[in-house]
Amino acid sequence: MESTLARLKLDADQPTPLYRQLAQQLVEAIEAGDWEAGEALPSERVLAERLNVSRITARKALDGLVAQGLIQRTRGSGTFIAPRLNQSLTRLTSFTELLVQRGHRPSSRWLSRALSTPSAEESLRLGLGADHRVSRLKRLRLADDVVVAVEESCLPSHVLADPDSVTHSLYRHLDNLGTPIVRALQHVSAVNADAELARLAEVPESQALLMMTRLGFLADGRPGELTVTYCRTDYYDFMVELTQ
Amino acid sequence: MESTLARLKLDADQPTPLYRQLAQQLVEAIEAGDWEAGEALPSERVLAERLNVSRITARKALDGLVAQGLIQRTRGSGTFIAPRLNQSLTRLTSFTELLVQRGHRPSSRWLSRALSTPSAEESLRLGLGADHRVSRLKRLRLADDVVVAVEESCLPSHVLADPDSVTHSLYRHLDNLGTPIVRALQHVSAVNADAELARLAEVPESQALLMMTRLGFLADGRPGELTVTYCRTDYYDFMVELTQ
Repeated sequence: MESTLARLKLDADQPTPLYRQLAQQLVEAIEAGDWEAGEALPSERVLAERLNVSRITARKALDGLVAQGLIQRTRGSGTFIAPRLNQSLTRLTSFTELLVQRGHRPSSRWLSRALSTPSAEESLRLGLGADHRVSRLKRLRLADDVVVAVEESCLPSHVLADPDSVTHSLYRHLDNLGTPIVRALQHVSAVNADAELARLAEVPESQALLMMTRLGFLADGRPGELTVTYCRTDYYDFMVELTQ
Repeated sequence: MESTLARLKLDADQPTPLYRQLAQQLVEAIEAGDWEAGEALPSERVLAERLNVSRITARKALDGLVAQGLIQRTRGSGTFIAPRLNQSLTRLTSFTELLVQRGHRPSSRWLSRALSTPSAEESLRLGLGADHRVSRLKRLRLADDVVVAVEESCLPSHVLADPDSVTHSLYRHLDNLGTPIVRALQHVSAVNADAELARLAEVPESQALLMMTRLGFLADGRPGELTVTYCRTDYYDFMVELTQ
């Protein structure tokens, strides 16, 4: 990082504004792999001092990189290199991990945990017979005490026999039980909040919510978890990196 | 495939129904890599004949795999192995390719193509100065003559100088111009359709739509394209595979 900073050279005599010169050189350094994903970038203050520019110039350069998704701001004043897809965005990241990464304080509030019978759709997707039972978990997900999502999970009882035994992370609990979810297919769609969802998510009725449906698979290839999450889009933003 | 078929063994004396035995053995064969992504699975008829079961049993087994996202049905009666993420779902697939893969006939209808000035947000995300111009493209995307999405693209004029020169695929056109988009960051969110979007997408006002915002990058790392697509969720379903 020190050597990268030393290589940045701005030229006030060029027609290109300084902030754009700085932004372009930072992009080139990021593309060249000078910083790793998750690593912190030099702060506005450090950039301004080392390159002898105003803090406003440094901030405008960083604003551009944030807008391009190359870096992310943390809740404090820092910025760090945005993770590339293969490192984290298609990793089976728990909701808790994701919010912590983004500088939020995650929590959840249980609405219900119970044994139940699967619907026809659930039986089909989880590969269950008519005699199977499922554990149902329903909870609110909060970031900094604001509700950001409503989550409903359905697991075959041979994967989770006692729904009340899940207290925090479902995935960590399944790891401990020796039946981890190792792979998942996630569908993303949009729905209008019905009266109950609106009440739970604390949004106006018919507000557009992101609906994510995740089918998780056990190591032996059998489905082990069907989770539907309704996310407030003012808090949740799903990103993927596409390549040729 | 012939050898896999020969290895499938169903046992009517077992308590597990035949269709679930068949589904489980097909899952194991898929997990073991006996079939490649995109490859066709044996048809219901072939499965039924070879395994000496009814076509209803074969269909119920395949229904389960479709519900689990392991196989996809084409518009005809066939099924094929669902693509894994790294093979196609994070590939920079054009809308046209995507619909063709799913058995639809894609088309598009231009709403406007013009040179314009960028908004503040566009300037920031595309890294443009105050004096830059952009090409704007707006079109409807159709599948089998039904509107499935409204798409708005904004490209710096140094990437696309003549908006009218784009007739079909924007990406193919940029390839031909020697400035291909090689990478993109795509954000997925949900919005309520306003009056104009509702009219264009042929949905009721305030209907929830998937909003995808794609920032495409050129080979030199500079942003070259900002595209916002509003998708009808009854047609579009975005899928990613997650792994640990």
